[in-house]
Amino acid sequence: MENFTYTIPTTIYFGKGQVKQIGDIVSQYGKRVLLVYGGGSIKRNGIYDDVTAIFKENGITYFELAGVEPNPRITTVRKGVEICRKENIEVVLPIGGGSTIDCAKVIAAATSYSGDAWDIVLDPSKVVSVLPIVSILTLAATGSEMDTFAVISDMDSNDKIGTSHEDMRPKASILDPTYTFSVPAYQTAAGTADIMSHIMECYFSNVQGYMQDRMAEGLLKTCIEFGVKAIAKPDDYEARANLMWASSWAINNFIKLGKAVEWSVHPMEHQLSAYYDITHGVGLAILTPHWMEHVLNDNTVEKFKEFGVNVWDLSKDEDAYTIAHQAIQKTREYFVAMGIPTTLREVGIVDDRYFDVMAEKACAGLEAAFVPLTKEDVKAIYQKAL
Amino acid sequence: MENFTYTIPTTIYFGKGQVKQIGDIVSQYGKRVLLVYGGGSIKRNGIYDDVTAIFKENGITYFELAGVEPNPRITTVRKGVEICRKENIEVVLPIGGGSTIDCAKVIAAATSYSGDAWDIVLDPSKVVSVLPIVSILTLAATGSEMDTFAVISDMDSNDKIGTSHEDMRPKASILDPTYTFSVPAYQTAAGTADIMSHIMECYFSNVQGYMQDRMAEGLLKTCIEFGVKAIAKPDDYEARANLMWASSWAINNFIKLGKAVEWSVHPMEHQLSAYYDITHGVGLAILTPHWMEHVLNDNTVEKFKEFGVNVWDLSKDEDAYTIAHQAIQKTREYFVAMGIPTTLREVGIVDDRYFDVMAEKACAGLEAAFVPLTKEDVKAIYQKAL
Repeated sequence: MENFTYTIPTTIYFGKGQVKQIGDIVSQYGKRVLLVYGGGSIKRNGIYDDVTAIFKENGITYFELAGVEPNPRITTVRKGVEICRKENIEVVLPIGGGSTIDCAKVIAAATSYSGDAWDIVLDPSKVVSVLPIVSILTLAATGSEMDTFAVISDMDSNDKIGTSHEDMRPKASILDPTYTFSVPAYQTAAGTADIMSHIMECYFSNVQGYMQDRMAEGLLKTCIEFGVKAIAKPDDYEARANLMWASSWAINNFIKLGKAVEWSVHPMEHQLSAYYDITHGVGLAILTPHWMEHVLNDNTVEKFKEFGVNVWDLSKDEDAYTIAHQAIQKTREYFVAMGIPTTLREVGIVDDRYFDVMAEKACAGLEAAFVPLTKEDVKAIYQKAL
Repeated sequence: MENFTYTIPTTIYFGKGQVKQIGDIVSQYGKRVLLVYGGGSIKRNGIYDDVTAIFKENGITYFELAGVEPNPRITTVRKGVEICRKENIEVVLPIGGGSTIDCAKVIAAATSYSGDAWDIVLDPSKVVSVLPIVSILTLAATGSEMDTFAVISDMDSNDKIGTSHEDMRPKASILDPTYTFSVPAYQTAAGTADIMSHIMECYFSNVQGYMQDRMAEGLLKTCIEFGVKAIAKPDDYEARANLMWASSWAINNFIKLGKAVEWSVHPMEHQLSAYYDITHGVGLAILTPHWMEHVLNDNTVEKFKEFGVNVWDLSKDEDAYTIAHQAIQKTREYFVAMGIPTTLREVGIVDDRYFDVMAEKACAGLEAAFVPLTKEDVKAIYQKAL
C-alpha cells in the first residue's frame, strides 16, 4: 500500500425528505445563493418549489442559472460566474446530476479568479478560492456530490476536460433516493454503468490495495444487484438508495487511496462524448468489454480472475483465462440486461472518420495505465466497438 | 436503508514516515500540547524522540501525561484534565493504541467542563467544548483514531463505560503501519479480534443495508487475510497496513449508517474486562462463537449463511444451518489460529461468582439487539464460555 492523505469532509444528508434541512445547511455558509440546474424536471417533480419555499422561510436570497447541458459547457460556466460576481453570491447550490454539480463547481472556483474560467479547467492550480458548494443530487452516476472533480466541455474545440481541486468538493450534499424515482430507464442504466466504470478504473491498477479492492468489489456487487432492479421498478427505494450511496463511494477517493491508479476507459470515452455528444455512461459501457479483452494478458489475467470470482461469483476452480473471458462476458451481458447498446453504431457513430484524432487525444496519459495504451491501441478499441 | 447524516471529517496521514508532518498538523490548532501515552514503548521505538524533536523545531511547547492503562481509568483522565487547565493546553496528542486515544478524548472533553470528568462519561450531552485531538496510532484495534467513542473504567465501582461525542473525533490521525511492527503476537491477535468484532456487531443487525454489508464483508476478509500474516511476520508492511486501515473503517460509522445497529458482544465483554481486567479483544474472541450459536435460529440463519458464503467462502449450495454452523466454526478456528484461547478459564476467570451481576449490567440495552438478550441469555453465554 502506498502512502496517502485521506480527507473527505463532505457531510451527506441521506434519505427521504432530507431537503427539509436545506435552510439550516445553506445558512452556515451565507444568505445569497445561486441555484444551478438543468432542464425543467426539478420544477415538475417539486424539488424547486420545496427548496425555494424553505429559502423564503429562512431569509435566503436566491438567483438562478438554468439550462445546464448534459455535458456542461464552458459558456454556461461563464454565465454563472457573471451572476456570482454581480450578485455577491455566497453559496452555489446545484440541483441535479453530475453535469449540474460539475458546472457549479467550476462556477464556484472561477468567481474569484481574474482570468477566464477555462484557464481553471485546464490548470486547477490557478484556483484562488472556491465559494461553498451545497448540492442536491437527482441522479446516481458521477459521484460529483462527494468528490473534487468536474468535467467541462468546450464545443468550439471539441474539448472535454476533467479538472479537480480539493476545495471544489461540496461542503454538504443531500442524497434523497426518491428524487431518482423519475429517472428514465436509459439514464438509470447509463448512470449505473458510469458508477461501475469508476470502480473498475480503480480496481484494475498496478499497485494493489487488498482492502481497497474488497471495497471496490462490494461496490460493484451493489451496482449489479440494484441496477437492473431500479430499471425494472423505478420506485424501488432500496435499489435507488444503494445505487445513490454507491455512486458517491465509487469516486470519492476511498477505493483509490493507497493504490496507484490511472484511468483507462474514461479518457477514451471523453473523446466520444466530445466529438459526438453521446451519453457518457453508455459510451463507457460500450467500450469497457473491448478494453478488457484488449488488456487481458499473462500479466493481468490473475486480476481478471479475481474480478470474475469475487464480483461475478464464478468458480475459482476453472483456468484463469476461462474465468477472465467469462467475467468480461458477464460484464457485457449486464450492460445489455440494463438495455445499453453494445456498439457505437447504435448510438450514431457510423464511421471511423474521427478515430485518429480522438485516439491521439485520448492516449495522452495512458502510458501509465493498468496496461499502457498507445494511439494504435485506442484506435483498435474504438474499431472493435464500432 | 434508513435515513442518516454522514460526517467523518478526520484527516488521515497514512503510511511510513508520516510523522514528519506532525509539526504542521498540530500548528493548525495551537502551540501548547499535552502528549498522552502509556508505558515506555514509544520511548524505546523512537516515536517519542521523533515527535518531540519536531515540536522543538516548530516552537511547540509540550507537557506529558504518561502511564495510561490498557483499560484507561477515570483517575488518569482527571490527572490529564488538571494539566490541561493549569498549562492552557490547546491540543491533546495521544500516542498509542485505543486506550490512550480514548483517555485523551475524555481529557479533551472534560477540560472545559466545570464538574467531574466521570459525569461526561456517563452523559456526553454535558460536553461543552472539546480541545482539538490529533492522534498517532501504534496499535490496530479500537478504531478510536477516526471515531467518536471512548471507553473509560472506574475500578472502584467495576464500571467500564462507553461514551461518544461528535467533537471527540480526532481532527487528524497519523497511521504509520511500521509503528505496529513491534506489537507482540498476542496483542496483534487481540487487536484483530477487536476489529472483527466491531464489524460483526454492525453486520448482524435487523435493518439491513446491502452496500453496507458488502463493505463489512470486505473489511472482515481483510482482517482474515492479514491477521495471521502479521502474527507470522511482524514486519509484513502490507499486513500491518491493511489491518491498520481496516481498524479505522470498522467503527467510524461507515458500515453502520443506514442500518439499525445495536451491539451485542461488546456490552457482554465490557463486563469481563471491568471485573477481571482481561484483554478486551481476547474476551470478544472467546464470547463471539458462543454468542453466535446462541442467537442462531430460523430468523437469523439466512444472515449466518450470507456470512459463511461471503466471508468464509463456503459453498452456497449446502443447507443454511449447515453453512451457519460451519461459519461459526470457521470464526472460532480463526481466533485459535491467531493464538487466542477459547475459554474464560484460560484467561483467569475460573468460576461464575460474578456472572449474575455482570449479566445484569450487560443486558441493559440488549433488548433491541440483533437477537434480544435477557440477563439469563447473557449468563448462559458466559457459562458456555467458561
